[in-house]
Amino acid sequence: MATEAAADDASDAPDAYDALLDRVRRWNAVGSAAGVLGWDQQVMMPEGGTPARSRQLSTLSSVRHEMITDAETGELLDRLADADLSDERAAVVREVSREYERADAVPRELVEEISEASTEALQAWEAAKAEDDFDRFAPHLERHVELKREYAEHIDPDRDPYAVLFEEYEPCLSMERTEAILEELRATLVPLIDAIRESDADLAVDTFEGQFPEDDQEALARDALDLVGYDFDRGRLDVSSHPFTSGNQFDCRITTRFDESDPLGAIGSTIHEYGHAQYALGLPKEQFGTPLGDDRDLSVHESQSRLWENHVGRSRAFWERFLPVFQERFPETADATVEDAYEAVNQVYEDNLIRVEADELTYHLHIVVRFEIERDLVRGDLAVEDVPEVWNDKYEEYLGIRPDTDSEGCLQDIHWSHGNFGYFPTYSLGSVMAAQLYAAAESEIDDLDAKTADGEFDDLQEWLAANVHRHGSRYETNELVERATGEGLSADAFTDYVEEKYGELYGI
Amino acid sequence: MATEAAADDASDAPDAYDALLDRVRRWNAVGSAAGVLGWDQQVMMPEGGTPARSRQLSTLSSVRHEMITDAETGELLDRLADADLSDERAAVVREVSREYERADAVPRELVEEISEASTEALQAWEAAKAEDDFDRFAPHLERHVELKREYAEHIDPDRDPYAVLFEEYEPCLSMERTEAILEELRATLVPLIDAIRESDADLAVDTFEGQFPEDDQEALARDALDLVGYDFDRGRLDVSSHPFTSGNQFDCRITTRFDESDPLGAIGSTIHEYGHAQYALGLPKEQFGTPLGDDRDLSVHESQSRLWENHVGRSRAFWERFLPVFQERFPETADATVEDAYEAVNQVYEDNLIRVEADELTYHLHIVVRFEIERDLVRGDLAVEDVPEVWNDKYEEYLGIRPDTDSEGCLQDIHWSHGNFGYFPTYSLGSVMAAQLYAAAESEIDDLDAKTADGEFDDLQEWLAANVHRHGSRYETNELVERATGEGLSADAFTDYVEEKYGELYGI
Repeated sequence: MATEAAADDASDAPDAYDALLDRVRRWNAVGSAAGVLGWDQQVMMPEGGTPARSRQLSTLSSVRHEMITDAETGELLDRLADADLSDERAAVVREVSREYERADAVPRELVEEISEASTEALQAWEAAKAEDDFDRFAPHLERHVELKREYAEHIDPDRDPYAVLFEEYEPCLSMERTEAILEELRATLVPLIDAIRESDADLAVDTFEGQFPEDDQEALARDALDLVGYDFDRGRLDVSSHPFTSGNQFDCRITTRFDESDPLGAIGSTIHEYGHAQYALGLPKEQFGTPLGDDRDLSVHESQSRLWENHVGRSRAFWERFLPVFQERFPETADATVEDAYEAVNQVYEDNLIRVEADELTYHLHIVVRFEIERDLVRGDLAVEDVPEVWNDKYEEYLGIRPDTDSEGCLQDIHWSHGNFGYFPTYSLGSVMAAQLYAAAESEIDDLDAKTADGEFDDLQEWLAANVHRHGSRYETNELVERATGEGLSADAFTDYVEEKYGELYGI
Repeated sequence: MATEAAADDASDAPDAYDALLDRVRRWNAVGSAAGVLGWDQQVMMPEGGTPARSRQLSTLSSVRHEMITDAETGELLDRLADADLSDERAAVVREVSREYERADAVPRELVEEISEASTEALQAWEAAKAEDDFDRFAPHLERHVELKREYAEHIDPDRDPYAVLFEEYEPCLSMERTEAILEELRATLVPLIDAIRESDADLAVDTFEGQFPEDDQEALARDALDLVGYDFDRGRLDVSSHPFTSGNQFDCRITTRFDESDPLGAIGSTIHEYGHAQYALGLPKEQFGTPLGDDRDLSVHESQSRLWENHVGRSRAFWERFLPVFQERFPETADATVEDAYEAVNQVYEDNLIRVEADELTYHLHIVVRFEIERDLVRGDLAVEDVPEVWNDKYEEYLGIRPDTDSEGCLQDIHWSHGNFGYFPTYSLGSVMAAQLYAAAESEIDDLDAKTADGEFDDLQEWLAANVHRHGSRYETNELVERATGEGLSADAFTDYVEEKYGELYGI
């Protein structure tokens, strides 16, 4: 009896906390092991390996799910619910509770059904995209909408299902704030892009045209990573069809891809992934496998990649330092000036239909289109069959261009074939957060621009590590931003940044 | 009550069998996932990744152990113990029972203690080897001997502990047969090597001296793999400090290493690993994750690598086909004849102290030394402090050479720093089995030698697949050999082979 009484008493909280943390470290070790298998699958695995890899990954996923939803997790969380915990420990319990509650709410069978539906949807999407045949994908999209609504309902039947799904990727920003930010982006960018198109500016966009061999581009990507300070003792650079970052504070690897006609694209993509990797590599080592040693969420992750890609990699200062390196690899560009490079990496496209090839401004209108469509699909306000036309109409309205095919329209992205509704907004939230964080860093670091031009990134690295990386998931997103910048997340810094930068660039 | 009665009845065997197989597939999926992490660690992982990788691997190991030793495994095996099963199912139950009983017998704490002791012993061994200081390693070896005796005692306190440990690597050949085979090897090889040293033969051992760039050697290794038919859609070739093979029937990868002064060594090593991979790739796909889709044991695995390395790769016929390929990569060897190549790859060294650099004959005396020493250590008939002197005495007695240092003596191999006592004999058992299998294949395949000279390996591949690979662990080792060759495993084919081959080569 004494033992049972103790179990209800906060006095055993330290034991319960340690026991919980042991469990969490275990399931996260399984999760990060699966991450290594995922990296291998995309970068190293021979084609024939798929059946074995699928079995390995689905087993690890189910093992991890069982560990999380084990009754003991719930019991430990109950014992800790009213315990008097330090701030750090309370943050850990908050994060673990959220993960436990979501995992526990959704039946394993539904998770497996979604996983199987994704395998089929992925194949159908690939064929539909190749053959420009939306009807082939439509039933799979329909099925995903149904399954994901069901999924959201298990978690909370009383809330907007899209908001619930969004929390899978960004668990601690409200849908209201997210919608307001996206709305502000649309309101700012549509007229700004119109003005750019009407301007007389004549940017040097052809300076880097030509053929740039892959091997030399790879050497240049390594030059760029050396310059910004990627730690190759804790990382790798490889090639994959879609660039991505995978890993943890001990081993975080990036991939890139090369287009022989677009060396600037590969540099931007490499620096983007570097920003992701830098976040993971800056998480506290001793907290590996706990929420304090894990990244906050996709929005914060994207803020780190966008900060490096846009605020560093698309700055004049960066190109002052990097252009000579570029020209050493590609002597045929010896005549290019820093201003040429700055204009080339910042040009706003007139007629680009493809999100992943978009510039810094139009990018967010690609996102707004997807956000509005997936939100309406999940809320039941839009039928799947109407997606292509709504997509094309929105492109015409926001971007002034209309796709000729669904392959270049609503079939272009992989996300919906996985049923990932709610993922897209995190890309724009990340950009907005990047602008806000960078503005704060600029105000706190002396001569940041001059340091970038000198290839000195230590101060910026330290600022990001101190204000973002080393907190892991200790703070919820808005608190993290507020502690770093003095204000909650808003689009203001971003709109100021793009209006000033592109106003100057295009003379408007 | 009806249900409980049924549980004791063989009539529910099909259900119990399926339930058992589900469990087995699950724990083997975790095991093969760990295999991918192990490959990555040795081939791809950046240096800094060790702490995360150790955590991932130890977690997967403990998850797998818990799955195996779960009470349900024992209950299902009990229900199947007296059931009327097909031969295939009975084989599966036999293999799973063996794994379960061993895992269940040994306390998890002891397994972890051995794992931790290995980490420390490995570091001590590296330092001891670098500094030629056996005393530094001795206490760790002592500890491993104690822990492994304890380990064996948990499994069976009434049997020879060395025999029990040997079964970790070769679970179904008796220690008596193993000792008899090793004794026969020693009795045959010591006088044969003496005779070779006394012979007047003057082999063309200098033909391939020179510097051969690594890149060209790698291209040549790929040529060799293409020739023998490695399926790169289910495999990879990479470089690692110690060549190894890792994978399954869908994805089996090999590694090799290059020494710029020894291109023949890299070819031999690559073909050796190819033989291992070919075994894994020949296991039945539909049985992935079950004993019927898993390799038999280390002896059989080594038989496949040695068959390709020695009976194919060290044959005149192979060099008839491969020498022109070699000479295309290395035109400086254009004057070499097939006989030169044959003599170079089959030379018996006078004074080599290192096992992994040994020739086809002396190799087994290196093994016999290790076998006798580790057996006596585990049985308590030899003290750790006496190992260096006993090692040197045995080298002098069997090989006619005496190491000057322990680095080149009893500290040369990694195995004992892992506490792997009983592993070494499987190398020689594999060679013996390779000779017996190859003799059977030769008697059943028309003109096998001529086919090799033509680069036609299909018949040999099919023979090995039909007689070895596709059985997985269905038969115990001796039955597998008997079904393939008509006789149980013995050293006869090997001794015939080496006496004829080396008698002709050295004119004795």
